[in-house]
Amino acid sequence: MSAPARVNLRRLATTQPDFEAAFRAVQHWSAETDDAIEGRVAEILADVRQRGDAAVLEYTARFDALPVGSMGELELTQADFAAAFAAITPAQRDALQQATRRIRSYHERQLDACGRSWSYRDEDGTLLGQKVTPLDRVGIYVPGGKAAYPSSLLMNAVPAHVAGVPEIVMVVPTPKGERNTLVLAAAHVAGVTRAFTIGGAQAVAALAYGTATVPQVDKITGPGNAYVASAKKRVFGTVGIDMIAGPSEILVLADGSTPADWVAMDLFSQAEHDELAQSILLCPDAAYLDAVQAEINRLLPGMPRAAIIRASLEGRGALIHTRSMEEACEISNRIAPEHLEVSSNEPHRWEPLLRHAGAIFLGAYTSESLGDYCAGPNHVLPTSGTARFSSPLGVYDFQKRSSLIEVSEQGAQTLGVIAAELAYGEGLQAHAQAAEMRLAKKPRAAR
Amino acid sequence: MSAPARVNLRRLATTQPDFEAAFRAVQHWSAETDDAIEGRVAEILADVRQRGDAAVLEYTARFDALPVGSMGELELTQADFAAAFAAITPAQRDALQQATRRIRSYHERQLDACGRSWSYRDEDGTLLGQKVTPLDRVGIYVPGGKAAYPSSLLMNAVPAHVAGVPEIVMVVPTPKGERNTLVLAAAHVAGVTRAFTIGGAQAVAALAYGTATVPQVDKITGPGNAYVASAKKRVFGTVGIDMIAGPSEILVLADGSTPADWVAMDLFSQAEHDELAQSILLCPDAAYLDAVQAEINRLLPGMPRAAIIRASLEGRGALIHTRSMEEACEISNRIAPEHLEVSSNEPHRWEPLLRHAGAIFLGAYTSESLGDYCAGPNHVLPTSGTARFSSPLGVYDFQKRSSLIEVSEQGAQTLGVIAAELAYGEGLQAHAQAAEMRLAKKPRAAR
Repeated sequence: MSAPARVNLRRLATTQPDFEAAFRAVQHWSAETDDAIEGRVAEILADVRQRGDAAVLEYTARFDALPVGSMGELELTQADFAAAFAAITPAQRDALQQATRRIRSYHERQLDACGRSWSYRDEDGTLLGQKVTPLDRVGIYVPGGKAAYPSSLLMNAVPAHVAGVPEIVMVVPTPKGERNTLVLAAAHVAGVTRAFTIGGAQAVAALAYGTATVPQVDKITGPGNAYVASAKKRVFGTVGIDMIAGPSEILVLADGSTPADWVAMDLFSQAEHDELAQSILLCPDAAYLDAVQAEINRLLPGMPRAAIIRASLEGRGALIHTRSMEEACEISNRIAPEHLEVSSNEPHRWEPLLRHAGAIFLGAYTSESLGDYCAGPNHVLPTSGTARFSSPLGVYDFQKRSSLIEVSEQGAQTLGVIAAELAYGEGLQAHAQAAEMRLAKKPRAAR
Repeated sequence: MSAPARVNLRRLATTQPDFEAAFRAVQHWSAETDDAIEGRVAEILADVRQRGDAAVLEYTARFDALPVGSMGELELTQADFAAAFAAITPAQRDALQQATRRIRSYHERQLDACGRSWSYRDEDGTLLGQKVTPLDRVGIYVPGGKAAYPSSLLMNAVPAHVAGVPEIVMVVPTPKGERNTLVLAAAHVAGVTRAFTIGGAQAVAALAYGTATVPQVDKITGPGNAYVASAKKRVFGTVGIDMIAGPSEILVLADGSTPADWVAMDLFSQAEHDELAQSILLCPDAAYLDAVQAEINRLLPGMPRAAIIRASLEGRGALIHTRSMEEACEISNRIAPEHLEVSSNEPHRWEPLLRHAGAIFLGAYTSESLGDYCAGPNHVLPTSGTARFSSPLGVYDFQKRSSLIEVSEQGAQTLGVIAAELAYGEGLQAHAQAAEMRLAKKPRAAR
C-alpha cells in the first residue's frame, strides 16, 4: 500500500498575527439563495395554491419522473409501512425500535420539564397562567433519493407524537418511484398518520395550502434541498416552520486525552455529509493536532466517501492551536456550532464556559454519531451560528401556548386604575373606558 | 343630542345557508406585502450592511427629518430616561412601576415553569439533558411618532430581563426629533442598556449587522410598520426575530351574562387601534347581540377615535349568532384569534374547548385592556390565525437550549451497536465507525 496523500487541512494558531482574518475566512458561509431558485419556487407555490392536486401531479411527473394519473397513487398506506418493516433485517428492526424508544424517553422528559400548562392566583384572586396545547396537524418533510435518512423521520415524528399532535402527515419524494425501505419502516415504528410520495416546493405548497387530497397542516418541519428551504421560508406565516438549515458543522474541543483516531473519525463523520459540511478541531496541544492530522491521513483512504470527506476538510475544515482550553471555549462561543464535542477527561470543567451550541457532547465516549441516531436528544439542530438564538427541534416545536387571565372583581379595581392611566397616556380611550367600566360595578343580567 | 347614526356591523347567523362563504369573507386578510416596499427594504439593508453608520445617518435625516452630524447625537442616555421619568405625573410613574412589577412577576413564574436547565442519567449512567441559557444581546424595536406605546416596551424588555439577557438595545424613531416622554420613562423603569433614536428598515439593519456605533444583536423583537416587518423577515437567520404581526384582533364569546356596554367597549378597544383591526362577537342569544349593537350605536359618538372605530367595525367586524356556546367555541378554534374573551359567568366550562388563541380572557371582569397593560401576561401575541402554531412573546423567546449528552463507557457499548446499524443503513460509514471505535475500548493517552 502506497503512502496515503496528505489531507491539506487548514492549520491555524491563535497566536499568529493574522489569526482574526484567517478565522473569519474559515467561518464565512453565505446563506444567500439563488434568485433563479427563489423565482421558480414562488411560481410553484402560486400554482399549487391555485390548481391544487393537478399542479402537484404535474410537478411530480416532471421533477421526480413519476407520472401517475391520480393523487391516490401517490399516497402510501399503513400496509406499505408494515411491509417495509417486515422486509428489513432483524438487526435493523431492532435498531429502529431501540432508537425510537430512547428518543421517545428523552422527549417525554422534555415534555415534563417544559411542556405542561401552569397557573396561579395572585393576592387578589386573579388567575394567571399559560395553557400548553399540541398543534392539530403537522407535516414532516423527509428527503428521498440519495440522502434518505430514516433517523430524521424519527427525530421529527417522535417529538410531535410526544407533544400530542393527533395527525402527522409525511411527504417523501420517490424519484422514478424508488421507495426507501428503511424510511418506510421508520414510519411504521414512529407512527405516521398519512404519507404522500411527493417532494420539493410542490410538496411544501400542498402541505401549507392544502389540496383536495393533501390536508393543510399547521406547521412543516424537516430538512430538504434549496427548493424545499426556499419554499418553507416563503410559506412561513401561513404555517409554522422549524428552521432553515445550513450545512452541518462539528466543533471539537480537545485537551489531548481522547485517542486521536477517535477524534479524526468524528471529524470525518461530519465531513462525509457533503462538501460544504464543516469540521473544526480546537486544541491547546500542538502535538495532539499533529497526531490527529496523521490519523486523518492514515484513515481517509479506507473511507467509502473519501472524496467528499477530503473536499469538505480541505475546503472548510481547520485545526486550530489555541493558547488554552479557556480560549478554545471562547472561540467556540463565537462560532456557536451545531455540534460541539468536548473531547476531554474533565468535560464538566469546560461545559459551564460554553454558552452557544445546538448540542454539547461531553467526554471521549460521546461521539456525535451516537447522538445523531439514538442517545435520545434531537439531531435537528441550529446551524450557521444560529445557536446564538435558537434551539434543537423539540416537543416545544409541536406545542403552542395561550395565556390565561381571569381577573377577579377585586383585581379589576386595582388593575383598572393602572390600565386606564397607561391607556390614556397612549391615547387609547376605549381601552381606558373598558377598564373603568369594571370599577366598583357588578355584572348585571344583560336583559 | 340627535340620535346617533347606526354602526353598520355585519350580522351573521350560523344557520344561514351561505354562512360558510360569508364567514370566509370576514376572515379574509392578506399578508401579502407590497413589492415596492420589499425592494426598497432590500436596498436599505444592503446599504447599511456595507456603509454602516454613514447609511443610518442618511436614512434618519431623510425619513425621520432628523439631520445630525454623528451617531453619538442619536444615542439616548440613562440620564435621558431618568429625566423623562421625573417629568411624568406621579400617577403615571406609579402606573408604570406597578405594571412592570406585575409583568415581571408573571414572567418569573414562566421562567420557573419552563425556562430552567434539566438533566438525568439513564440506567447505563449516560447523562442526558438540556441546558437553558439567555441570549447575549437583544434589540427591541419601539415604534415612535403617533403610535408610541410605552406598554410595548415593557412587554418586550421585561421578559428579556427575566430571561437574564445582559444587554438590551432599544431603537425608537423620533421623527423631527420629537421624543415620547412616556416611552423614555418606561425605558427607565424596565431597564434598557443602550438606546438609539433610529427607526425603520435602517434600524433593523443596524441591529442585525452591527455598525461602528450600534452593536450587533442576536435577536430583534417588537412591532413596527410594513418596512420594519419586511426588514425583520429579511434579516431572519442572521438574527432571530419574534414574529411578523398582522392587524390586531379580538373575538368575544358571550353567553349574555356580561353587561352589553362592557362588551361593546371591549370591541371598541380593539377597533380603535386601526381600520384593519378586527372585532368579532359570537353569541347564541340573538337578543343579546341586539343589545350590544344598541350599546355600540349609543357609545360610539362619545369616543375620541370614533372614526377609526367605525371604519374598523364596519369593514372587518361581525356579530355572529351561533346555535350554541359549543358551536361558538368551534368557530373560535377556526379563527385562532389573538385575543379571546370568554364573556360568560361559567368561563371554565368553555375554556377546555378552546384550543387556539394568543390569550384567553376569562369572565366579565377580564377586559382585554387589563391584559394589554398590567395583568402580567405578555400583550405581544400571535395574530392572523398563527395562534394555531405560535405563542405569546415570553421568557422562552429570550433563551435558547443546548442538548447535553455524556455517554458513559457502558452506554457506548449499547448505543454504538444501534448507531452503527442505522448509520450503515444510511450509507454513512464514518458515523458508523466513530461509534464502533468506542466499542470495548478505553480511551488511551493520545501520545
